[in-house]
Amino acid sequence: MNLKAGETIENLHIKTLRLIQGKKEFRFGIDAVLLSDFARTKGKCKACDLGTGTGIIPLLMSEKNPEANFECIEIQEESADMARRNVELNNLQEKIKIFCADIKEPFKVLQKNSFDAVVSNPPYIEISNGNTNKTKPLSVARHEVFCTLEDVIKTAYALLKSHGKFFMIHKPFRLPQIFSLLEKYKLAPKRIKLVFPNKEKEASMVMIESEKCAKPYLKVESPIIVYGDDGKYTRQIEKIYGRN
Amino acid sequence: MNLKAGETIENLHIKTLRLIQGKKEFRFGIDAVLLSDFARTKGKCKACDLGTGTGIIPLLMSEKNPEANFECIEIQEESADMARRNVELNNLQEKIKIFCADIKEPFKVLQKNSFDAVVSNPPYIEISNGNTNKTKPLSVARHEVFCTLEDVIKTAYALLKSHGKFFMIHKPFRLPQIFSLLEKYKLAPKRIKLVFPNKEKEASMVMIESEKCAKPYLKVESPIIVYGDDGKYTRQIEKIYGRN
Repeated sequence: MNLKAGETIENLHIKTLRLIQGKKEFRFGIDAVLLSDFARTKGKCKACDLGTGTGIIPLLMSEKNPEANFECIEIQEESADMARRNVELNNLQEKIKIFCADIKEPFKVLQKNSFDAVVSNPPYIEISNGNTNKTKPLSVARHEVFCTLEDVIKTAYALLKSHGKFFMIHKPFRLPQIFSLLEKYKLAPKRIKLVFPNKEKEASMVMIESEKCAKPYLKVESPIIVYGDDGKYTRQIEKIYGRN
Repeated sequence: MNLKAGETIENLHIKTLRLIQGKKEFRFGIDAVLLSDFARTKGKCKACDLGTGTGIIPLLMSEKNPEANFECIEIQEESADMARRNVELNNLQEKIKIFCADIKEPFKVLQKNSFDAVVSNPPYIEISNGNTNKTKPLSVARHEVFCTLEDVIKTAYALLKSHGKFFMIHKPFRLPQIFSLLEKYKLAPKRIKLVFPNKEKEASMVMIESEKCAKPYLKVESPIIVYGDDGKYTRQIEKIYGRN
């Protein structure tokens, strides 16, 4: 494994996974870990991660379901390269393919109406809402530089089979817009799960499962509370990290 | 105070409030208590409760803000009569007016664009979803016999001043539809608060605050958990009931 300047290999302390992380670049956060736990797949299935970054989501999901096959896209060549090397580092080349491609043009590399599951941890911030350096990987991961929320949802719909599932994590303040776009693209919201930093604070993230061409009937699942009164991760979070 | 057959007067154990309750008829539930706590009004203001039933919501809100004036409507004469007697029982005739009127025709008794706040604990169940005895007060309170969710939201919009607030409690499975209707009637969702029976179960209720003609920016507030691991009300709930 060739590491590039500034890169290190870290044990994830999530089963035996290891990950190359850039020193200054975007490092994966708790949102990727939570989404991988929320987005459960069963048995042999074909899944896609839209905007996979360094590949953390397919790596974590692959641990939970070793039978799943992933075809993932990432627009930034530097991140896609790191994702490919992460896949090799964990010997998952058979199971996880990484393509450098645009979420807005997925059919150059992926097949329409063919996926059982699509996941995405897309950029959260609308580009109009702040000045952004459009060239930095960190900015691209956080801001809607290369794709909007609508692009992500539209592509998820197009990639899924009928009754395929779309799993996304996003900011709670965009929930009305998310529901409205899911409806527009015939993805029925089925489950949402809110993440609260502690039990006194407002939600910081929301995860949504929707199903292509299904009848809408939403369940709001029990909340995730990240930190307990003692300031440490709750048992719930430790369990998601596989630590108890 | 004349009580009718089957009625009793109960101390609410919420400050000094007393309430006439029918023995067999609909009795107020925790949803009214939670909504009254969520729907805070400040100082002198004009508020309306749409479908007030026996008047529990304006009575509880009046305890929290004695300066607020309420004009409430209830379509069932029997419930409206009980609401009026509840208002008298608590000497709040100056502050709370009860009208027997239809939510779909509010302008027969209420003034358009004149309210600072509108609250509603509307029927939760769509009429198509079950066989319903359309004549019983309990059925009318629970099923959309006399009004749909859209009727309630449309009327709330029409009654509110610009930047007036609409507070509603409803079932979480209807959240996508609620957001969609709020958007249709220019009510921007500002706060939601979910209610979970305990920390393991899915949400049983959701409260939504929206604002007429405002910019949308949603906050998902810290959750309400009703029962603790010991099976008793949590401190949070005891506090809402004013018991600690």
